[in-house]
Amino acid sequence: MPMIQCDLTKDLFEAKGTEISQAIHEGLMAGLDMPGDDLFQVFRTHRPEEIVFSPTYGGVERRDLILIRVTMQQMFSNAEKQRMHREIVQRLEAAGIRHQDVLICILETGFEAWYAGGDL
Amino acid sequence: MPMIQCDLTKDLFEAKGTEISQAIHEGLMAGLDMPGDDLFQVFRTHRPEEIVFSPTYGGVERRDLILIRVTMQQMFSNAEKQRMHREIVQRLEAAGIRHQDVLICILETGFEAWYAGGDL
Amino acid sequence: MPMIQCDLTKDLFEAKGTEISQAIHEGLMAGLDMPGDDLFQVFRTHRPEEIVFSPTYGGVERRDLILIRVTMQQMFSNAEKQRMHREIVQRLEAAGIRHQDVLICILETGFEAWYAGGDL
Repeated sequence: MPMIQCDLTKDLFEAKGTEISQAIHEGLMAGLDMPGDDLFQVFRTHRPEEIVFSPTYGGVERRDLILIRVTMQQMFSNAEKQRMHREIVQRLEAAGIRHQDVLICILETGFEAWYAGGDL
Repeated sequence: MPMIQCDLTKDLFEAKGTEISQAIHEGLMAGLDMPGDDLFQVFRTHRPEEIVFSPTYGGVERRDLILIRVTMQQMFSNAEKQRMHREIVQRLEAAGIRHQDVLICILETGFEAWYAGGDL
Repeated sequence: MPMIQCDLTKDLFEAKGTEISQAIHEGLMAGLDMPGDDLFQVFRTHRPEEIVFSPTYGGVERRDLILIRVTMQQMFSNAEKQRMHREIVQRLEAAGIRHQDVLICILETGFEAWYAGGDL
């Protein structure tokens, strides 16, 4: 039950929001073996001045940052997390998003953290 | 000192923002025995296309998702977390929000994570 | 590689966004000994009614809340976190933001949580 939060410019979302949503979702499926109907994403669109970033940190040349936060249960190995990163980034690149412009961060929770609409 | 972040459609916030805010706050008070003046909430309003979700995941029939993140100190039992979920969701239902449309996630921090306006 | 998420009113961001960004960044550098090119910030602007808060919780008199979330690797001592809080808040005060109006929360992750644009 990962919850995705994605901050990006309004222009980028207007141009490629559907492709970005799909790339992230398929990246989670491929990287974490998530079922295809496990889909919870929020996109927050911004004016460029609301996203402030280093264009060079880590020796990477950034132009138009897209930030992806993945909040998920603490149940995956480091190898699975790295695989998830790679699977997301490769699909974003196929959609025309440079990998240099991607920042991903995973936040982990316990199982009891979640309520997802079930009967009480 | 929970911090609430709530993502929902602009239409839903316009129609029921005050009731939703109150339902979440009273749910925290009832579920976690929080004092009534411990209130920190941010509402982020969205166009419908910015909130992407499975209408069926987990056997739940969703129509208009509202996402609630509760960031709080690591000091509550699993039973208290479940009680908090229940108390929030019941109050949201009383305000006309279907429980199927609610997604809640708890993020836990240490005590030292917080600064809340006190003298330095 | 801290990621900063800041929620504040649109009016405050229009008036002092650059100073706030700089104050947070320099506070991280001074408080955590971060390198100057480690800069990733997202500002989310709000109408006043989207930020709901207690004007008195903890004996603090709040008027116009600004919320700062710092997501960073779990590698800093409690003393360093407190120093970071102090360094940020002092610089915000110098920019005209009352310390009473600041709420900071740190979220910690493992090293493997992050992807920051490097080669795959």
